[in-house]
Amino acid sequence: AALVQAVADVTENIEVLAFLPQNNSYLFSSARVAPAVLYAQRRLEADARFSGFRFNVHFEDSDCVNGAMFALVERACARKPHLILGPVCEYEAAAVVRLASHWNVPVVSAGALAAGFSKKKTEYAQLTRIAPSYVKMGEIFAAMFERFDWRSALLVYEDDRQERNCFFTLEGIYHMLHDVDMKTYPLDDGVALDTDKVLQNIVDTEAVVIMCMPAEKIRELMLAAHARQLTGGNHMFFNVDLFNASSYGNGSWKKGDKHDNNAKQAFAFLNTVTLLRTVKPEFEVFSEEMKASVKKAEFQDCNDCADVNMFVEGFHDAVLLYAIALYEATKHGYSKRNGTEITSRMWNRTFEGIAGPVSIDENGDRNGDFSLIAMTNTSSGTYEAVANYFGGNGSFQLLPGISADRFTLKGQRKPPPEITEKSCGLGV
Amino acid sequence: AALVQAVADVTENIEVLAFLPQNNSYLFSSARVAPAVLYAQRRLEADARFSGFRFNVHFEDSDCVNGAMFALVERACARKPHLILGPVCEYEAAAVVRLASHWNVPVVSAGALAAGFSKKKTEYAQLTRIAPSYVKMGEIFAAMFERFDWRSALLVYEDDRQERNCFFTLEGIYHMLHDVDMKTYPLDDGVALDTDKVLQNIVDTEAVVIMCMPAEKIRELMLAAHARQLTGGNHMFFNVDLFNASSYGNGSWKKGDKHDNNAKQAFAFLNTVTLLRTVKPEFEVFSEEMKASVKKAEFQDCNDCADVNMFVEGFHDAVLLYAIALYEATKHGYSKRNGTEITSRMWNRTFEGIAGPVSIDENGDRNGDFSLIAMTNTSSGTYEAVANYFGGNGSFQLLPGISADRFTLKGQRKPPPEITEKSCGLGV
Repeated sequence: AALVQAVADVTENIEVLAFLPQNNSYLFSSARVAPAVLYAQRRLEADARFSGFRFNVHFEDSDCVNGAMFALVERACARKPHLILGPVCEYEAAAVVRLASHWNVPVVSAGALAAGFSKKKTEYAQLTRIAPSYVKMGEIFAAMFERFDWRSALLVYEDDRQERNCFFTLEGIYHMLHDVDMKTYPLDDGVALDTDKVLQNIVDTEAVVIMCMPAEKIRELMLAAHARQLTGGNHMFFNVDLFNASSYGNGSWKKGDKHDNNAKQAFAFLNTVTLLRTVKPEFEVFSEEMKASVKKAEFQDCNDCADVNMFVEGFHDAVLLYAIALYEATKHGYSKRNGTEITSRMWNRTFEGIAGPVSIDENGDRNGDFSLIAMTNTSSGTYEAVANYFGGNGSFQLLPGISADRFTLKGQRKPPPEITEKSCGLGV
Repeated sequence: AALVQAVADVTENIEVLAFLPQNNSYLFSSARVAPAVLYAQRRLEADARFSGFRFNVHFEDSDCVNGAMFALVERACARKPHLILGPVCEYEAAAVVRLASHWNVPVVSAGALAAGFSKKKTEYAQLTRIAPSYVKMGEIFAAMFERFDWRSALLVYEDDRQERNCFFTLEGIYHMLHDVDMKTYPLDDGVALDTDKVLQNIVDTEAVVIMCMPAEKIRELMLAAHARQLTGGNHMFFNVDLFNASSYGNGSWKKGDKHDNNAKQAFAFLNTVTLLRTVKPEFEVFSEEMKASVKKAEFQDCNDCADVNMFVEGFHDAVLLYAIALYEATKHGYSKRNGTEITSRMWNRTFEGIAGPVSIDENGDRNGDFSLIAMTNTSSGTYEAVANYFGGNGSFQLLPGISADRFTLKGQRKPPPEITEKSCGLGV
């Protein structure tokens, strides 16, 4: 009996509530992400450091509206969880994180990427973001605008007025571009692209064009821009490939239609910002296992559902990061109910995630490493990374053999010559 | 013992949760509104129809952010209320009404006036609005634009980016003005008025100017417009006096400074939309009692805190309306927990409120009766109602002796002549 008592004393039950959609149409649907969470759970079980904890994961449906909030309240009335994973969708996450912060329960999400969640002082005090937020993605643009002296931007995006991924993405970029003349061009979801109108906006501005919309619309616009000879170096074209998934413009010109050849030429002028991908042997094992799990879920119409996207990777690492912080907090005598202590230990730290090092900044947001992908062989039409951005130290690096000329805006008015004499005036 | 049992059987406890701010700076602070709720509670106790119910009112603080939601959740974990009164503030109400609707608990508020709350099919199914929403206020503008053939509007408003009363007010008007060319001019809260810029906007448009901002800014703008001779009949000027309270532009030119005389002349061209005020003897009694209650609360810097504003009146009537619906629903055998049945009985009905008849439309929103107040004696500078709008039947009536010329835009391009022959075409 004494032995049983001792074991009971050291094994702490940790109730984890994971909010993931049952609906398979999401990149972060339960069928895709739950295997990663369970994979991480098994890793923790095998790790002697965490032998004092039993992580009980409860999956609750998330409907990207209010489902998660309602489920949290119902559950919390009985017994509050110790950790909440997700939700991903912005509006749903807002409600859940506010409640959880009020209750001092840590939330780790690979979503909640909008700029508004950066405010951690009050409403979102318990939120740790394990995937780079949209503002972090804005950093690579800020670095390029400064490096290449671009001065105006046209943000073209599709807005579904529901989850608003592209709206929030470009909002993040907007937040980071200071001293840049900006115009926005929103496109309604499901409405045909009026390429003439968009191109007129491109002509009217000396702008760097940053797009966030589905791959098909990107292709349509690039074809039209190329036909009107707007791709010759007076403009720059960027799209963002969100979430390591191809649903948001994967930069592919190939469609198997009669426009393929023109599209290949047009796409020579397109630059795609993606998450920097790292590969290590451990990741391959994880990746294989995820593929096997997802196959069982029988997705329909989904070519890349077995791929490990940002959410799958993120929620795996979320479990790890929480476990490390929990371990430290309890070692220092704090209770598993002390969300403030646990959350603060997840912030301002770097740890080894499933795909490589993960660094969380002092505000509890993951630093983002991004790659710029572009066509490097115009005859075969293949892409390579041409530059990388490292969020940890804010460095933007062109890869060997890539010339800065590629990013020089030809038509832009020259800036006034720099005054090199040192001024002795006030504040300059 | 049998008798006690019988009494216990017929007395149903009704738990009412009222969300009102402890902070006295609100028009609807607890110190001002709670007496009205308790007044209504006493009336119910004296009414034989309601002898089977005991209404227990619990006042919870509302902070216009998340306070009400958090309090609701904490309380609901123990025991859900049967009725929620308030909250007033839009963002706070959104969360509370969503939760309450999910739990099938009726909410009656004299706030939650924004256009978004009109959607009662899903999120806000349990919301009954006992005061006219901003969209209802838009109706009187829609009626005037049609009657006087105005075709463009400039909406000038102060936006505090917190509670956003004026933003939501003009949003409601915006919703109701179809086929009107509209421009908006938001002013940041706390920033000095750039009258030149606003006036330029007025000159550039042939617009009817609709303002929602504090009384002082209204006066400043009217003085400037008058000095630039914009008040001569080429433009119309409106402001809205929200909530039967003078905090939002009460149309007063008198300030006791050197501009009084000019302000009097300028204000001859200002029209103020207010709630239509009715007086009946019963209201006087209520009004006196409210004054006495508020005096005890010792407000600071508050001239009109003892006046019965829209919220004070509304929350009183909210208790009455709920009691009537509850009485009917239980008489038909439904439980006090059946929010759907009770709420549906509050909708599409007219009943006698403390100040006069209250009519709730089929969507659970109060029909609004409004008055248009304008200066009728330019030498004394006094105001009178010049027109009324009745939401129940949508009629706009100029009062006797008021000429439509007053509302004719002099500079406006004439509309094409009306074709008086009867058309035999389709649908005309």
